[in-house]
Amino acid sequence: MNNYRLTIQYDGSRYNGWQRLNDTDNTIEQILTDAIIKSTGEKTKLIGSGRTDAGVHALAQTANFRCRQRLDEMHFTEELNSMLPEDIRVNLTKRVPPDFHSRHSATGKYYVYRIEISEPANPFRRRYSWKPDGIPDVKLMCEAAQRMIGEHDFKAFCTDAKLMPYTVKTVYDINIHKDYSCLWNREEPGIIELEFHGSGFLYNMVRIMAGTIVDAGLGRFSPADIDAMLNGGTRSMSGQLAPARGLFLKKAEYSY
Amino acid sequence: MNNYRLTIQYDGSRYNGWQRLNDTDNTIEQILTDAIIKSTGEKTKLIGSGRTDAGVHALAQTANFRCRQRLDEMHFTEELNSMLPEDIRVNLTKRVPPDFHSRHSATGKYYVYRIEISEPANPFRRRYSWKPDGIPDVKLMCEAAQRMIGEHDFKAFCTDAKLMPYTVKTVYDINIHKDYSCLWNREEPGIIELEFHGSGFLYNMVRIMAGTIVDAGLGRFSPADIDAMLNGGTRSMSGQLAPARGLFLKKAEYSY
Repeated sequence: MNNYRLTIQYDGSRYNGWQRLNDTDNTIEQILTDAIIKSTGEKTKLIGSGRTDAGVHALAQTANFRCRQRLDEMHFTEELNSMLPEDIRVNLTKRVPPDFHSRHSATGKYYVYRIEISEPANPFRRRYSWKPDGIPDVKLMCEAAQRMIGEHDFKAFCTDAKLMPYTVKTVYDINIHKDYSCLWNREEPGIIELEFHGSGFLYNMVRIMAGTIVDAGLGRFSPADIDAMLNGGTRSMSGQLAPARGLFLKKAEYSY
Repeated sequence: MNNYRLTIQYDGSRYNGWQRLNDTDNTIEQILTDAIIKSTGEKTKLIGSGRTDAGVHALAQTANFRCRQRLDEMHFTEELNSMLPEDIRVNLTKRVPPDFHSRHSATGKYYVYRIEISEPANPFRRRYSWKPDGIPDVKLMCEAAQRMIGEHDFKAFCTDAKLMPYTVKTVYDINIHKDYSCLWNREEPGIIELEFHGSGFLYNMVRIMAGTIVDAGLGRFSPADIDAMLNGGTRSMSGQLAPARGLFLKKAEYSY
């Protein structure tokens, strides 16, 4: 059995997220799985590094699938792209060791959240950023972000925490860039980007962290409030849920 | 009577172009006019620098309108933006001399056409670029573009030339940038941008010039073919009509 890893880029604007659902075919996982089965003629299951919510984008999502036949990786990539809609692109197909598992093998994830601060907002960025109600202070945002780094119980930064078996996660780093895009590696005036690097993230965790950091930047939370959220706090204590359209899965990280 | 000039940015993806039409309200001119009338309480007519087709974008369209009352320019800009959809933004309102006329006073126009050459295409750019069938050679493109510069009869680069009273126009310059965006002033790998500067442009002229330059870059036309198009040629001799989504009105030019 061969094992193939895909690197996938998608504009999530018009999809119901990554994960296959019973009531709709409009998910990235479903559309990709259909294209793989059509191309290989074999039934298979696609394993993603994790879910992205409805409307969330990915610069480099990782997924893998098993297949009896040996594929020509270049040709297969082109074939998939010819079948996929324009807003989902496979950038790379790579044969990997049999034990590679997109979710279990992942050692970390990078997410980027984009905040628009131009006045008026740039209409060409509106699908890929969030314009909060006010211009947050970057220094206050950094102070709030700093407190979230490390191993904490992120119960207050999660939707439906009761359904989660374990809400302790490690955030390795949060970097904040103003007027520079860490997503596209270039200057981008009028944009603040938050880059989150962590072991893994709970349901809506990045969006609630981003919303809370922006709220702190607008003076709605003090540093002590952030500490309280991380010490046994609940969802009602933390900030707003930032909209899906500003969020990008930048990449999933693997040790090999 | 006061005269006000607006500088407007729009994502044309979901509109039927600039110009007011009888059978739809879905035009930029109509939506802006409605907002101005609602804000000032006065009937007025908005004069644009020129039309943009359905699906074409503008980085800085210019328009003006006359108004009895004296407006607070900053406040008025904010009020308009609060009424407009997110994909149309007024960047500036400025009181101008009574004889300023967006169309008649214009001395030139700048348009930018964006071509995607990444393989696979970047899904986040698909609304704002065209991926031709093949990767055009930039040197051949420049040679073709060079021949179009100057005063010529652009009948072959126009849809419905019979309806045009006069098809002679002057193209001042065509600049071609690879991996650099003259629209956003920054590096943009995988993009070729054509920047057109001219006295004025006929219906579909920029899109047919862009399509013909790309066709030349793909080896479909020789330099001599371009000359023939400009010397009494007809539409059937020139290249493809490049799609609206790659075209941006960069700015209209005024001597004051």
